Amino acid sequence: MSDKPVIGFLGLGHMGLPMAINLHRAGYKLKGFDVVPAAVQAAQEAGIETVDTQEDAAVDVDVVLTMFPSGKHVLEAYEKHLLQSAKPNTLFLECSTIDVAQARQAAELAVAAGHRSADAPVSGGVVGAEAGSLTFMLGAQDEDLAEITALLEHMGKRIVHCGGYGAGQAAKVCNNMLLGISMIGAAEAFVLGERLGLEHQALYDVISSASGQCWAVTTNCPVPGPVPTSPANREYQPGFAAALMAKDLGLATSALEHTTTDAQLGALAASLYRKFSDEGNAGTDFSGIINAIREGTL
Amino acid sequence: MSDKPVIGFLGLGHMGLPMAINLHRAGYKLKGFDVVPAAVQAAQEAGIETVDTQEDAAVDVDVVLTMFPSGKHVLEAYEKHLLQSAKPNTLFLECSTIDVAQARQAAELAVAAGHRSADAPVSGGVVGAEAGSLTFMLGAQDEDLAEITALLEHMGKRIVHCGGYGAGQAAKVCNNMLLGISMIGAAEAFVLGERLGLEHQALYDVISSASGQCWAVTTNCPVPGPVPTSPANREYQPGFAAALMAKDLGLATSALEHTTTDAQLGALAASLYRKFSDEGNAGTDFSGIINAIREGTL
Repeated sequence: MSDKPVIGFLGLGHMGLPMAINLHRAGYKLKGFDVVPAAVQAAQEAGIETVDTQEDAAVDVDVVLTMFPSGKHVLEAYEKHLLQSAKPNTLFLECSTIDVAQARQAAELAVAAGHRSADAPVSGGVVGAEAGSLTFMLGAQDEDLAEITALLEHMGKRIVHCGGYGAGQAAKVCNNMLLGISMIGAAEAFVLGERLGLEHQALYDVISSASGQCWAVTTNCPVPGPVPTSPANREYQPGFAAALMAKDLGLATSALEHTTTDAQLGALAASLYRKFSDEGNAGTDFSGIINAIREGTL
Repeated sequence: MSDKPVIGFLGLGHMGLPMAINLHRAGYKLKGFDVVPAAVQAAQEAGIETVDTQEDAAVDVDVVLTMFPSGKHVLEAYEKHLLQSAKPNTLFLECSTIDVAQARQAAELAVAAGHRSADAPVSGGVVGAEAGSLTFMLGAQDEDLAEITALLEHMGKRIVHCGGYGAGQAAKVCNNMLLGISMIGAAEAFVLGERLGLEHQALYDVISSASGQCWAVTTNCPVPGPVPTSPANREYQPGFAAALMAKDLGLATSALEHTTTDAQLGALAASLYRKFSDEGNAGTDFSGIINAIREGTL
């Protein structure tokens, strides 16, 4: 146990705390930090050692793991608190979902300060974080892979190496842009089917084994019934909240602009989810957008 | 063999002929008809009996099966040639992909003329028609199911009963609207991934086992490499031609208008595929739209 790396773990929120707990249970020594007192207290109650400042979380650790709401938070923490506090060659493992350009900027800052860097955004939500079944999309140097994998495998069941710095964020933003498009498409298909007199189950039976098949239908089906575990069966409690989809599609829009890519469906999906989230549905599962489509309010 | 129903088979084109050949091989007596002499000749060469008029194809048969390019053709044939020529209670089995409203109109006409009706549009393309592995989406009365299934199972491997008159067309239009949306979304995701420096295989590995998973990626992947059987590996030879996707999305647009459904992604996908097909890509596999997205010409 004593040769396990020591982890500075910053960001003990809905996602970060269960991830930290899984590392703690696996025998890692953590230095936990969060700006929210309740998050700190919850970590302490789970037996995790916490520290009072971001600097303390970076001092004398082997890995600095961040799980923050946005790239702005990450860059600010790196520049003001973390990079200069960490010992040389510390691994900065950035697990937040942030802008690809900001992720690459964070990696450059870390390397310039004499550290190592990797981005490893996750998918799988709070349920996956608690179960240790997250998927990590990893942007990392080959020589760091073994060390990173040994750590992440306690928090997730799938680690996909996507390339160098920023590649994890890039893969996630592409996947989630497609997911947002698929879900709106699935919702439109089911609403059209209703109006044409089709039963939900009949349309599900066709789509699920035909060319329209997609995760948005077969795992997170936007109508109740065909997939008992989908949020539609519990009045669209998330699951994956519309606010998070709106955030991810905002990152997609940013990436499209940076790369001057004309992705018309992606751009439209981003504006529809922004509107849906802003009009009182931020905490609704993202599949709940079917209700706004049915009502014609988007 | 002698108790098999006799089939009037109208429409011996790229889809119809291989379907007719499969029925012929299964021992059915056919009366084949097409307006195109080359199609008639090809049917004759396959050993299928042909007749000279649409009326002849409907006289003294048990089933009138139509495989036409559009609903206009179907309604015209029903009204002018077929309904009055067939003996009472003939089963009119409409396998073309047509407008839902026209499919219901055709069913009403058939029933009013003392016949039975069912719609059974197919998916699976020419390859599926030749292999006898089509999927049929069936709108039919319960009491006709056994008879219809016994016939269709020689041409397809999957028959989904979607409901009453028109339900087969309804399910197909919903599925294919979602397919068109998914494919554009998949193409946009891969183009964005390229610009963000991701290898195709890396992005495929993420999407195929994550929430962006869809048939458009895992079976008909719009970039060459990850899925060897996808048309992208043979310079986007169809497969499923862009002109057919544009046609199906035109049917979707019609259904959206009839039902006053506001499906913004479906409507946008329809206009993008119409433009792509009209600008010299009608015969390209529908996944080839990725090239227009990459070039920014849509």
